[in-house]
Amino acid sequence: MISRRRFNSTLIEGAAALSIVSSLRAADKSPNFVVILADDLGYGDLGCYGHPTIRTPNLDRMANEGMRFTQFYAGASVCSPSRAALLTGRLPIRTGINRVLVPWSAGGLRKEEATIPEALKPAGYATACVGKWHLGHLPEYLPTRHGFDRYFGIPYSNDMSPRTAGNPTYIQQLKQHADAPEYTPLLRGEDLIEKDPDQSQLTARYTEEASAFITDSVKAKMPFFLYMAHTFPHVPLFAGDRFRGKSPRGLYGDVLEELDWSVGEVRHSLSSLGVERDTLVFFTSDNGPWLVQKYEGGSAGLLREGKGSTWEGGFREPGIACWPGKIPAGAVTESFGTTMDLLPTFLKLAGLGVPKDRVFDGADLSEVLLENRPGREPLLFYYLGPELQAVRKGPWKLHLAATNPGIGENWVTCFERPQLYNLLQDPSEKYDVSDSNPETVEDLERAIEEHKRTLQPGPAQT
Amino acid sequence: MISRRRFNSTLIEGAAALSIVSSLRAADKSPNFVVILADDLGYGDLGCYGHPTIRTPNLDRMANEGMRFTQFYAGASVCSPSRAALLTGRLPIRTGINRVLVPWSAGGLRKEEATIPEALKPAGYATACVGKWHLGHLPEYLPTRHGFDRYFGIPYSNDMSPRTAGNPTYIQQLKQHADAPEYTPLLRGEDLIEKDPDQSQLTARYTEEASAFITDSVKAKMPFFLYMAHTFPHVPLFAGDRFRGKSPRGLYGDVLEELDWSVGEVRHSLSSLGVERDTLVFFTSDNGPWLVQKYEGGSAGLLREGKGSTWEGGFREPGIACWPGKIPAGAVTESFGTTMDLLPTFLKLAGLGVPKDRVFDGADLSEVLLENRPGREPLLFYYLGPELQAVRKGPWKLHLAATNPGIGENWVTCFERPQLYNLLQDPSEKYDVSDSNPETVEDLERAIEEHKRTLQPGPAQT
Repeated sequence: MISRRRFNSTLIEGAAALSIVSSLRAADKSPNFVVILADDLGYGDLGCYGHPTIRTPNLDRMANEGMRFTQFYAGASVCSPSRAALLTGRLPIRTGINRVLVPWSAGGLRKEEATIPEALKPAGYATACVGKWHLGHLPEYLPTRHGFDRYFGIPYSNDMSPRTAGNPTYIQQLKQHADAPEYTPLLRGEDLIEKDPDQSQLTARYTEEASAFITDSVKAKMPFFLYMAHTFPHVPLFAGDRFRGKSPRGLYGDVLEELDWSVGEVRHSLSSLGVERDTLVFFTSDNGPWLVQKYEGGSAGLLREGKGSTWEGGFREPGIACWPGKIPAGAVTESFGTTMDLLPTFLKLAGLGVPKDRVFDGADLSEVLLENRPGREPLLFYYLGPELQAVRKGPWKLHLAATNPGIGENWVTCFERPQLYNLLQDPSEKYDVSDSNPETVEDLERAIEEHKRTLQPGPAQT
Repeated sequence: MISRRRFNSTLIEGAAALSIVSSLRAADKSPNFVVILADDLGYGDLGCYGHPTIRTPNLDRMANEGMRFTQFYAGASVCSPSRAALLTGRLPIRTGINRVLVPWSAGGLRKEEATIPEALKPAGYATACVGKWHLGHLPEYLPTRHGFDRYFGIPYSNDMSPRTAGNPTYIQQLKQHADAPEYTPLLRGEDLIEKDPDQSQLTARYTEEASAFITDSVKAKMPFFLYMAHTFPHVPLFAGDRFRGKSPRGLYGDVLEELDWSVGEVRHSLSSLGVERDTLVFFTSDNGPWLVQKYEGGSAGLLREGKGSTWEGGFREPGIACWPGKIPAGAVTESFGTTMDLLPTFLKLAGLGVPKDRVFDGADLSEVLLENRPGREPLLFYYLGPELQAVRKGPWKLHLAATNPGIGENWVTCFERPQLYNLLQDPSEKYDVSDSNPETVEDLERAIEEHKRTLQPGPAQT
């Protein structure tokens, strides 16, 4: 670690120097972590990822002052599985969170799973979840039962009440479940504090809540972990007064520009409290753009397809990490990374070990982040629900089947023969090169067999 | 202009101050201009425009130190017409350069046209064209007959000899023309100096030539205009030894990374000669990616289609302007601009008037560049050959017809009813909204009628 080297080379004289060393050591051992997660944001939706008319100056600045990933992945291409992967460092198939949970779901993230906040607790972290949870709305599954000291937010998607849902079939299902609330619940801790909160105020309220938590943690001299999972830009879209009607991209742009503002506010809180250099901030999204929403859905840029698909547009996301003085400024990395890497990375940076009693799919990214070294060889299994549709190994991706949500009700195509793509040379997955690379096809098929042979799926949560 | 204001507010005392004022004045009146034009580069092919595996640190730095356009256009989606538009500030239909010229073409850019170097000559500019010309290979059409003091390069595309052409029909046609050279000619001035030069050395040789011209001009204390039109990344692709096999994107990436290196070298020449702050460098491309080349063609990012099409991927290009101390660093502009704007912009910055004897389609961009002000309302007519296929006015684009070169031999679809797209909200041209915006359709149809009514097409060059 960079800071350890700096510590070793420091000449120590007198009490003042000792106090500096002590504060360095504390920061080394227990840096703060802030994860900011967008909802349904596409790979191509930020200025620094090439969008022509969405203005994201705060995220662009964060990239300039930190590191921007070009091959960073979510653990799934829909909400609940992706969030389970991020918080546990494990593929959704292992936790059983294979599908999107609904307001009448009986299941959720089981207590047997270890989450980032639980794993950080031994080092004395204050922890908070602000925003969308979507890992079970029943009390036993809420953030407060999974290592978070605080929770403030809506426990599932903002389109899951009869008033906000766009899908008539869904509304019909909802009405058949007497136990499912007919409103969008806003919780504090485990308490319902508002039914159907004004969604145009949510981003601002989440931001205020995040800043309050950061302030309280700094005052309490506790290291902290903030998991800030925005409700937006998931449809239905709502922007605050200051942002509505301002973006040339329309309402989707307004919403995203407010989210960008929020990132700036959180970083401002850190700097005004003097903990900017003790805090790793990571920004990404849960899955790709919801393309069937047309104007109100985002863009995967040059990547194929979006949310609900195992094409790259569903899984690959913006990934921006910032930690002034630790992560080299302005770095762009092609290193492979996934949201499942956050758990082992944070534990490493906090000087904690990863639990030995279970399989993790993520890996420690700290050398990529702190030293801008090339990361490990990419390996990712792309599930849709409990079905494995594709695998990436190195530059290659083998597709066994694919879902193109844009052409109907989750239309699945099972290919007669697997299709092979070189993601470095053909990021848009246009050219199937399986014919000319039979050995690579076999290699990836072996990786799938090995994965399936050793896999222990978790109990499916619905 | 910013610099004029600075001049007015300067206190002038003694000879030293006078000499500063005089040099400011000289720089104001006659800044140097360097246009670097790539060939078939897509909107999505640079790091700063979101490509995940092509590394363009020099162009990214140039964007960080200058201004990046997100709505900058070529004048056409194929080589010759686009180059005619850039050099004359006029739509190709006006100059008659509607189609790609070939080694047996009898025509070219007529002497009646005024080019950027010709227009700059009254202010004493040294001028050079380095690289691909493609506006007529016969002596009367060469750069040296159009205001360039020097020329070094191949006068047309690098795939136009029997040895480099990929298209059998083309080779057959070529062989039927006894007057067409069966090699790729490298010219210096108007003289053939090599047949079939080693294309892997071209980018390095062009770079050396550009630096020599800059050095000579600075030594001669002359303001200069350099038009550096790279042969690449047009197929067939060749990269120098230092770049071949280096990019994760494959050969296309190697070639582009060498081109990026070249941009860095040219900027280094400017700074080492102390004229960086007196020189506006503009980087763009002639048209979008040649998608039918698959792995060897580029990417238009989130834009639809590529070269040879009037969809945005054919016309919209990276546009990066850098002029330290004049153009605000790190600016990203959504202002509309086209290569046809370069002529009036350069003339304005050089204190020269635009000729009154003809119609120009470009407009002065100097306020966008120097003051980061919003530009004029977009207005662009998208021709393919002599056929008008689309018009952009404001955020709207009306398509009368479209060509999808990817699906066959320049397959043209004439729409039964025009299609309307909102380019700010739907940059990928996915959602035809003509039904819900009949007044906008009418408005754009009127713009087309007005354009056609007043248009005087130039004699078609073939």
